Amino acid sequence: MNVLIVHAHNEPQSFNASMLNLAVDVLSGQGHEVVVSDLYAMKFNPVASADDFGQRANSEHLVYALEQRNGYNTGTLAPDILAELDKIKWADLIILNFPIYWFSMPAIMKGWIDRVFISGFCYGGVRIYDRGGLKGKKAMLAFSLGGQDHMFGPGAVHGDLQTLLQPIQRGVLGYVGLTVLPPFVAFHVPYISEEARHQYLEQYRQHLLTLDERPSLEFPSLDDYDELLHPKVLPACV
Amino acid sequence: MNVLIVHAHNEPQSFNASMLNLAVDVLSGQGHEVVVSDLYAMKFNPVASADDFGQRANSEHLVYALEQRNGYNTGTLAPDILAELDKIKWADLIILNFPIYWFSMPAIMKGWIDRVFISGFCYGGVRIYDRGGLKGKKAMLAFSLGGQDHMFGPGAVHGDLQTLLQPIQRGVLGYVGLTVLPPFVAFHVPYISEEARHQYLEQYRQHLLTLDERPSLEFPSLDDYDELLHPKVLPACV
Repeated sequence: MNVLIVHAHNEPQSFNASMLNLAVDVLSGQGHEVVVSDLYAMKFNPVASADDFGQRANSEHLVYALEQRNGYNTGTLAPDILAELDKIKWADLIILNFPIYWFSMPAIMKGWIDRVFISGFCYGGVRIYDRGGLKGKKAMLAFSLGGQDHMFGPGAVHGDLQTLLQPIQRGVLGYVGLTVLPPFVAFHVPYISEEARHQYLEQYRQHLLTLDERPSLEFPSLDDYDELLHPKVLPACV
Repeated sequence: MNVLIVHAHNEPQSFNASMLNLAVDVLSGQGHEVVVSDLYAMKFNPVASADDFGQRANSEHLVYALEQRNGYNTGTLAPDILAELDKIKWADLIILNFPIYWFSMPAIMKGWIDRVFISGFCYGGVRIYDRGGLKGKKAMLAFSLGGQDHMFGPGAVHGDLQTLLQPIQRGVLGYVGLTVLPPFVAFHVPYISEEARHQYLEQYRQHLLTLDERPSLEFPSLDDYDELLHPKVLPACV
């Protein structure tokens, strides 16, 4: 399959860079084609603005999502957005590889989402979740974080990790129709021994080698909602 | 009190800009001092990188949070970061005013958090949540979004809004010790009538005039965790 790895780290020798290099090696070794978008190396512009549109549907008042649709339809989106969109179209699997910043992704990667996951092609109206524009493709998060395992979960100081990831895994990846594989998580990375980091990389290798065996995350099906996205069946307890 | 409003919208005539202008008027009218960081107008750089540090503790390998601490202690952080930090120190209340992009904030605002909420001053070690560095100050989200009210909640297509906001309200604002006031939310803004937008602005005016009456959100207290952040009492059901 074709794999796009989007990588965002400001240190070329980081553990995240080791994760990236390992993923390229393992997936290439399995015969997959791998392309990397190294956002820091590319000096990717994360700021969604009027500059993204060579031609505007409404030059008086910018509604970003509407101009994304117009820009795509008229072929006038900024070249750096179109280049990333081409990679997304080509990919069967998209891996987002990053360090957690503030229980989310670094701004440079958030801006890659803001600018590249365009309205019209990736989603629009009720073309979301299991009817999203990227349906049929897969995605996976691979990230490091400073916190320790025991700091996440019911009653833990930072709360449940899956809940913290919901805006990304369900709200971004699931929203555009991607099948989301379970994430790979490396805890406490800045503070652990070199040996512990090697163990994480070995775990990541096994994770990558067994992607097909992992059940994907479950998100809403639009079959359960009417055309105005009201639930057809109300929840048993509210 | 001193109020800092951080504003992130790429259209100067947007509804979010009307929210900003209203907040400035209402809060100034009450005798408060108001300062605005208009991130798009400032062309704020959202990318956390080595360029943020005039002098490095470790010039070989960048660990961003460690260099934040060193940069702050040595007075060598980038001037745009120091300018925003000065506003934070001055402020009693910080309002983040933005349109929801992908169930989160636009990248330019995420980068403001990534770069300005520095390790050392804003948090560090177990100086988090009710022991965070910004304890004693307040914060509030004020945002618009494209979705409708009925699309959020138990059983709703996008899930619970408070859950989606958790990484920001608890994971960012609560984490650094800010007392978080309930957010102001304007739904479906790009698609509603001018009259409906005026109604939202009137609601926001009332929201701003009654800030003192609203109970703040509840987050963990470090009193309930040991020095390694293990919970002192395990939850009743896991």
